[in-house]
Amino acid sequence: MNRYAPVLRALGMIVMLFALTMLAPLTLSWIVDDGAQSVYDESFALTLLCGLFLWYRYRSCRREMNVRDGFLMVVLVWTVLPAFAALPLMLQLGISHTDAYFEAMSGLTTTGATVLAGIDQLPMSINLWRHQLVWVGGMGLIVLAIAILPLLGIGGRQMFKAETPGPMKDAKLTPRIASTAKGLWGVYVGVSLLCILAYRLAGMSWFDAVCHGFSTMGLGGFSTHDASFGFFDSPAIEAVAIAFMLVAGMNFGTLFLAVSRQSLRPYLHDPEAGWFLAVCLVSVFGIAIFLGAHDVYPEFLVALRHSAFNVVSIATTTGYASVDYALWPVFAPLWMLFLCSFATSAGSTGGGIKMARALLLYKQVYREIVRAMHPNAVYSVRIGGQVAPPGILFAVLAFGFMYMVSIVSLTLLLVFTGLDAITAFTAIVAMVNNTGPGLGEVGPSTTFAVLEDFQTWICSFAMLLGRLEIFTLLVVLTPAFWRR
Amino acid sequence: MNRYAPVLRALGMIVMLFALTMLAPLTLSWIVDDGAQSVYDESFALTLLCGLFLWYRYRSCRREMNVRDGFLMVVLVWTVLPAFAALPLMLQLGISHTDAYFEAMSGLTTTGATVLAGIDQLPMSINLWRHQLVWVGGMGLIVLAIAILPLLGIGGRQMFKAETPGPMKDAKLTPRIASTAKGLWGVYVGVSLLCILAYRLAGMSWFDAVCHGFSTMGLGGFSTHDASFGFFDSPAIEAVAIAFMLVAGMNFGTLFLAVSRQSLRPYLHDPEAGWFLAVCLVSVFGIAIFLGAHDVYPEFLVALRHSAFNVVSIATTTGYASVDYALWPVFAPLWMLFLCSFATSAGSTGGGIKMARALLLYKQVYREIVRAMHPNAVYSVRIGGQVAPPGILFAVLAFGFMYMVSIVSLTLLLVFTGLDAITAFTAIVAMVNNTGPGLGEVGPSTTFAVLEDFQTWICSFAMLLGRLEIFTLLVVLTPAFWRR
Ligand SMILES: [K+]
Ligand SMILES: [K+]
Repeated sequence: MNRYAPVLRALGMIVMLFALTMLAPLTLSWIVDDGAQSVYDESFALTLLCGLFLWYRYRSCRREMNVRDGFLMVVLVWTVLPAFAALPLMLQLGISHTDAYFEAMSGLTTTGATVLAGIDQLPMSINLWRHQLVWVGGMGLIVLAIAILPLLGIGGRQMFKAETPGPMKDAKLTPRIASTAKGLWGVYVGVSLLCILAYRLAGMSWFDAVCHGFSTMGLGGFSTHDASFGFFDSPAIEAVAIAFMLVAGMNFGTLFLAVSRQSLRPYLHDPEAGWFLAVCLVSVFGIAIFLGAHDVYPEFLVALRHSAFNVVSIATTTGYASVDYALWPVFAPLWMLFLCSFATSAGSTGGGIKMARALLLYKQVYREIVRAMHPNAVYSVRIGGQVAPPGILFAVLAFGFMYMVSIVSLTLLLVFTGLDAITAFTAIVAMVNNTGPGLGEVGPSTTFAVLEDFQTWICSFAMLLGRLEIFTLLVVLTPAFWRR
Repeated sequence: MNRYAPVLRALGMIVMLFALTMLAPLTLSWIVDDGAQSVYDESFALTLLCGLFLWYRYRSCRREMNVRDGFLMVVLVWTVLPAFAALPLMLQLGISHTDAYFEAMSGLTTTGATVLAGIDQLPMSINLWRHQLVWVGGMGLIVLAIAILPLLGIGGRQMFKAETPGPMKDAKLTPRIASTAKGLWGVYVGVSLLCILAYRLAGMSWFDAVCHGFSTMGLGGFSTHDASFGFFDSPAIEAVAIAFMLVAGMNFGTLFLAVSRQSLRPYLHDPEAGWFLAVCLVSVFGIAIFLGAHDVYPEFLVALRHSAFNVVSIATTTGYASVDYALWPVFAPLWMLFLCSFATSAGSTGGGIKMARALLLYKQVYREIVRAMHPNAVYSVRIGGQVAPPGILFAVLAFGFMYMVSIVSLTLLLVFTGLDAITAFTAIVAMVNNTGPGLGEVGPSTTFAVLEDFQTWICSFAMLLGRLEIFTLLVVLTPAFWRR
């Protein structure tokens, strides 16, 4: 029996399940007759058959997955699904496989960067497919972040496990994932429905409400319009978006607790949520004042409106834009990109290093300062009342370091291929944090289609690296992983 | 008795000693009659009197310095001496105290960034003073890096202690510094003389040879010409510079051993030296090929010559330029700035995080990858055959993290003041690594005079932060340091 049998068998099942998600755009395509029907027929059939073949080939395997299999599994899911997801885009739009894979990866990693222009004119079903990818990616992410990564011990993820609701604490891999997923998916689906309804009430069409509801909950940032939220130009719609982006930027485990206890108290006990909201609030007002001081918007309330929407959008790693904030004095967009690197919570659908790790890193640095002053003092790092063991602290520090090394080295690689430094750096930051738009040639008013194929592949890699929290991917890329 | 008495008494002595170094430009000024004589008279008298006052006031203090005093001492020396060193520049050149302090800080931290244009026309004694500051700063740095910082336990410096020659291993603070300093200063002075002689033989005037010898050994990067090494346009002079920059970029403790044993073997046993030379060699050839491929220099040998000089100059954090490498395709100068952040050895006069820490960080990350695959495996990080204890690893990781945080936050601050992102980022990288020239408005063909006063102060702060290895300064800036 193939040593990867349990992984391939599970992969086959996931691919089959993924094929089923194609039925939604397929149905829509038939109903509205947007000319993309045959494309979904083919994509659906191909995906389902591939999944069926894999599952059938290894169906007799009864071995449980181990930690090593877990790594391979996660990496395979996040590299293989985008290839299938790219099929309808390639077949219908005639874009290259490089661009289609980028777009699909961008959806499933909830990055939301696009290579497509003229989005308003796309077939409805293609737009539904793009946004649905984000929503499905967000679902997968919740399982990944709350159930799988902690088991794999990536970057101190074990630490965050303690903060998720009760039923998910121990037990074996498969049943645990299932029980975790059920509770959290219920919450995720429920809030998504609320979000769609709120968008509809605020004035969106049903189709726009569904699409934007999907990309808001996944913190994805895809839109059905080239002008993103600038198309609507509606404070009400922006307010709805802000509210739901903030919710999705916090731990879904906390939301699950809040819903099941019908109380907001769990948020008071979630240190990440407090810091996240504080950072957003201060930044929104700070940037509004900064824009006023630089006469970008003479009226403070106008500045506050645009600051609130765009700062929250980038800080939560969503990536919507209501104005071309790349035209603001450069401190503002750089600060926004800085926020997206750490503001969202572990267990949310956001990207970056996560607030929990940022707090641990801060406490660690403070400890080193104290230790320098009092070499013999004992000072332990706590989070949520618990003392963090050294293994976790090492993992978090190494994660923080590798996160920065990844950004520096991928930026240098993009610059080597001929991109200017600003475009390269902001593109990589936006990719690694799964945020979406950068600055320069890949700013909010442009698309990633300007990149050459090789640069596009680097960006796809960077999205994957960020989404899998760097080490998951690095482990599988190590020769030692494949030995024996 | 003042609780800072031992610190202030020692500071007084150091200020008095520093006043004595003004006698060199004073004498030169009288000999060549360059019009700056009275300036040195005043500066010398003022500095000596201030030092004398401090020392006299606290002369009766007999308490030994403790670790806390050590922090204060180091920070005071590196903030107070530049103020005195700025006196001749302010008085003679009529530049603002902001610019003069920046120039003096740039010298004493061996950064070598300048606010002065028309350097060729400066009074000879002023040029001597600038270059001598670098050389004196390099001397101070050797004591700081090899004797003081390890005792203060900054960023894992204790680890590097083991690799310095025998007599410096333990004993109390003061006698130990003295014995360490004697051996290393002897080597430093000897190599400096060789360097000066080599420059003279390669064709420099005696004055240029002395000045450039000073700034080469301190890896400072000041020059007596606006065109830096482009003024000489001599492969022989560039070869001399490359050789001595490489020597000064490696541990002076290793050099001390090599000299005392009359053998090159100590360099074979110095892992930092090997990596440093390998990184430089690969980069020099890589950049030469890159320049050839981009048709910057049609002839490979010309590309190799300019690559060799400028890459080694930036990688060793020296900061000389023989051509305006800011005009090269942007990957080349960015790669050079990347090198300067880690290439030089601990115990050299270079800046950045140092190769020893870079190696430890790399091994740490590798360990985390292994640990993710085999959660129960025991894998210890070694350097030079020794197992690094967890405390050291934490310190190094925290240092690596804070180093990056410093660059990000100071860059954001400079951008906030209105600088463009490239100028701000490269200026901060060049300051924190004590390298000198950045890119954009502060590239190798321009000066830091373009900055506004507040921006100049940020840069002075960044140089200090880098030179004191971040934590030394952070500790003193903590409220907790001043309590009790
Ligand atoms: K996003
Ligand atoms: K320098």
